[in-house]
Amino acid sequence: MRASRFFISTLKEAPSDAEIVSHQLMMRAGMIKRLGSGIYTYMPTGLRIIRKVENIIREEMNKAGAIELLMPLVQPAELWQETGRWDKMGPELMRVKDRHGREFAIQPTSEEVVTDVVRSELKSYRQLPINFYHIQTKFRDERRPRFGLMRGREFTMKDAYSFDRDVEGMQKSYATMFEAYTKIFTRFGLKFRAVAADNGAIGGTGSHEFHVIASTGEDALVYCPTSSYAANIEAAEALASGERAAPTQELTKTSTPGKTKCEAVAELLDIPLQHHVKSIALTVEAEGKKTYFLLLLRADHELNEIKVNKVPGLKEFRFSTEAEIGEAYGTVPGYLGPINTKLPVTVVADRTVANMADFVCGANEADYHYVGANWGRDCAEPLVADLRNVVEGDPSPDGKGVLAIERGIEVGHVFQLGTAYSEAMGATFLDEAGKPAPLQMGCYGIGVTRILGAAIEQNFDDKGIVWPDAIAPFELVLCPMGLDRSEMVREHTEQLYADLQAAGIDVIVDDRGLRPGAMFADWELIGVPHRIVIGERGLKEGNLEYQGRRDEAATSVPVDGMVAFIKGKLGK
Amino acid sequence: MRASRFFISTLKEAPSDAEIVSHQLMMRAGMIKRLGSGIYTYMPTGLRIIRKVENIIREEMNKAGAIELLMPLVQPAELWQETGRWDKMGPELMRVKDRHGREFAIQPTSEEVVTDVVRSELKSYRQLPINFYHIQTKFRDERRPRFGLMRGREFTMKDAYSFDRDVEGMQKSYATMFEAYTKIFTRFGLKFRAVAADNGAIGGTGSHEFHVIASTGEDALVYCPTSSYAANIEAAEALASGERAAPTQELTKTSTPGKTKCEAVAELLDIPLQHHVKSIALTVEAEGKKTYFLLLLRADHELNEIKVNKVPGLKEFRFSTEAEIGEAYGTVPGYLGPINTKLPVTVVADRTVANMADFVCGANEADYHYVGANWGRDCAEPLVADLRNVVEGDPSPDGKGVLAIERGIEVGHVFQLGTAYSEAMGATFLDEAGKPAPLQMGCYGIGVTRILGAAIEQNFDDKGIVWPDAIAPFELVLCPMGLDRSEMVREHTEQLYADLQAAGIDVIVDDRGLRPGAMFADWELIGVPHRIVIGERGLKEGNLEYQGRRDEAATSVPVDGMVAFIKGKLGK
Repeated sequence: MRASRFFISTLKEAPSDAEIVSHQLMMRAGMIKRLGSGIYTYMPTGLRIIRKVENIIREEMNKAGAIELLMPLVQPAELWQETGRWDKMGPELMRVKDRHGREFAIQPTSEEVVTDVVRSELKSYRQLPINFYHIQTKFRDERRPRFGLMRGREFTMKDAYSFDRDVEGMQKSYATMFEAYTKIFTRFGLKFRAVAADNGAIGGTGSHEFHVIASTGEDALVYCPTSSYAANIEAAEALASGERAAPTQELTKTSTPGKTKCEAVAELLDIPLQHHVKSIALTVEAEGKKTYFLLLLRADHELNEIKVNKVPGLKEFRFSTEAEIGEAYGTVPGYLGPINTKLPVTVVADRTVANMADFVCGANEADYHYVGANWGRDCAEPLVADLRNVVEGDPSPDGKGVLAIERGIEVGHVFQLGTAYSEAMGATFLDEAGKPAPLQMGCYGIGVTRILGAAIEQNFDDKGIVWPDAIAPFELVLCPMGLDRSEMVREHTEQLYADLQAAGIDVIVDDRGLRPGAMFADWELIGVPHRIVIGERGLKEGNLEYQGRRDEAATSVPVDGMVAFIKGKLGK
Repeated sequence: MRASRFFISTLKEAPSDAEIVSHQLMMRAGMIKRLGSGIYTYMPTGLRIIRKVENIIREEMNKAGAIELLMPLVQPAELWQETGRWDKMGPELMRVKDRHGREFAIQPTSEEVVTDVVRSELKSYRQLPINFYHIQTKFRDERRPRFGLMRGREFTMKDAYSFDRDVEGMQKSYATMFEAYTKIFTRFGLKFRAVAADNGAIGGTGSHEFHVIASTGEDALVYCPTSSYAANIEAAEALASGERAAPTQELTKTSTPGKTKCEAVAELLDIPLQHHVKSIALTVEAEGKKTYFLLLLRADHELNEIKVNKVPGLKEFRFSTEAEIGEAYGTVPGYLGPINTKLPVTVVADRTVANMADFVCGANEADYHYVGANWGRDCAEPLVADLRNVVEGDPSPDGKGVLAIERGIEVGHVFQLGTAYSEAMGATFLDEAGKPAPLQMGCYGIGVTRILGAAIEQNFDDKGIVWPDAIAPFELVLCPMGLDRSEMVREHTEQLYADLQAAGIDVIVDDRGLRPGAMFADWELIGVPHRIVIGERGLKEGNLEYQGRRDEAATSVPVDGMVAFIKGKLGK
């Protein structure tokens, strides 16, 4: 490519609505252009990256035996009604009526359509397993689109759907996709981590997320550096730390006037925060009747609501109101505890709390806390459950070390769906006995356009983006010095350009005639990972200057050896 | 590709709603699957063809200097309001509201968005010319979607937009695109014709359509076999045939009771139809005042309403009502003519009619016609205009022969738009003097998915589709006989498959284990252009059987020479 025949448009400053680095740099590098809230034109440089991402995905999906098709963007409401998602999905499902008043969804994903294809096309177990995928524009009408391509409304996604005859087959298909995803993210040249995830609303029996590691990531990833354990914070199991000691203190009601937060009580009493218990009052209403639950966490731990949902009886909990707290505990928020509640409440202690002795908790009386509280002695033994987010240093659930936490950006997700969709839509196959059975389904997504944002969040410096070779808009840029006045530079540039292209290198030559400073700044901002400077001074000594995007200084390389040198750098 | 890892699903019968051959064959061959009216899933075989079509387009667009980007599907109404198309376009523009009630269009084309990109990105004449294109899903809410991919609602289009500093530049960009289109359609391996077109509602100064030639085509294409003249029927200029002779007959009012059609009058009077004149009464209303026009055509010719629109004063015509005919001509429909009208009307004669002598026309009196009518003698000389469709044998407008007509399917269109969009949207650049000037624009479309339908309408037989090599889903199919029982067949198949792949041939091996008849029928229906049969009998003599899709019989080819033979067939 010649820069003079390409479109490069860089900015000194990012627009003010670009809050995060990747959004700022993509705008400044001219890779995307905002058309509306969460809707972007992919400019030529950005599109080149998207195509490289798509091609790597496509190659690995094909190698893994998945078959590409292309499902429509505009999908009839009737299909979405069959699975109930037409009603279940909120306003993020973009709905549209045609000229005859018939309703359609603009696809956010394609479970319904692929299940519809399969229920009419697949008849026999002999056609299984099968995995269909497409790479297609998606629309999700986000309440608050932001962060550029990270949380846009219109975006590109690869979504794949596997169909199997039984659970074992589905798990095999799932494992194949897991492996393909690992290859895909490895080929991108990004640091990533696959973590076990909670299946959440989509149902099914197993799921993993693939995250690009970045300190700016929205998600906390839990892993064990000495084993293969990894899960997102929602799914990571928190074990108790330590064992319960015998009581050594008397239960003492202590005045803590105005101290409603554990941190304030700890400071007042000069007792470390780890000895305090935080009480969270919940209400569950069913058939007009209220039941009260009191959750207990160590004061320095965080509640995990997804785990709370899994405690028997707490699927539909809400936080208690002040009036309810008064009724159940006879006090005001800030002074609750498991001892001497006004009404009987179900006390659920986090595993760590259940192992505590001589702890501090609210006294169910305004301006008072108990010190030296102990299970069994001062109140009944509580129900015990995993209620909290893990923290660094917690024991790994696999018993093979302690947990660490890092931040990530979710770019892929694999799900074992089971028969949720196939049963709702009557997608069956005939087994060997000629009997119809529902298809076992898996689904597998990669956020194609989101990869760009995530890759940048992981790879940038104060000059701009630093693309990994595999997904860079160009692998290499040639920067000739004084192209308009030096015949020698011109000739060597053309020759090198031709030789590099012949060697299969994706090279752009900057023939725009800019000053060196402006030229270098553009390519550093855009993030092309390799650069060759062609200047008369070097040429007279038979040399060119090579500099990697992360290199501190340039390296002199003989003209004759440059193509081989670059091939070496690119591993080609 | 191995057929066992691909998805092939053929049908004996097409669904009853498939009216035309290409729709029937695409459904039977399992290339598309209907999701809703005018909305199709592109199944794996169909998608392969689409990708090949897209890649050829992309390569040639890039070679011609156009730059690919990707504009959004969901576009804010505000942009469409700037050009007035939000109101001008009818219900075929699919409109949607987001969760905040803001209005959007699902793009049918992208003139507004590209002009918006350009008005903020292009500043100087130095950045011109530039040509941006994208290949993207489009939606047009057709009143009556039909013919499969030929007139669908959701479809894929390549649309390109050129921007120039002046008309001369625009015409050059246009010529470059015309040439690129010629290369693209040539590479598809389709018989096609570029014809001059009327610019119609879109405005501007010049346009051509690219048609795939097919006897089933909706459009009539006019061309001169002995010159380069070609135009669509709407735009082809109809010259007068012959010169006006001197009158030889007296004007005679003749009784023609009940004969309101020229054909009936001709039969009654035994005068050839070519001597009759057909009268068409028009009304133009402006500021509450009605003006009457009488158009005259030779009885065997057809009115061309687009040409009528261009006659001064007739931009906003309608056909006269019976009451208006009574008022202006004093008679009823079927007996109108230019002689002795009741009110003065403007008579506009087609060029051919203006050259007629001794003609038959209505007498402006029920049940009577004039025979032997002559211009100048019996009524005033008429205004003369080109009002009709050309017919085979008409003189070519370039004076280099006579015209022929064939049928075509429009698959591409190039337009000189001028400044219509740039002026409406304030898209200017600074010229050398630093003065802002509106950009001169061109636009260029190719209906990607429509190409599939058009290619099939041109290339099929009673067994199925016959794809040209360049856009076939696979170039070649290997059909091994008895793969499960012959070690010799298995080994040769694997070796040949590997050798063909290494030679860069897009080959599929049918390892499904079907009977030969069923196997051959599938590939003939799908339309793979080349086939090799691998059987024990031939192998024992060192031969394989080759058959081209249009060949009547197979050819024996030595095993060792087969790869070279196929490369020869494919011109590789």
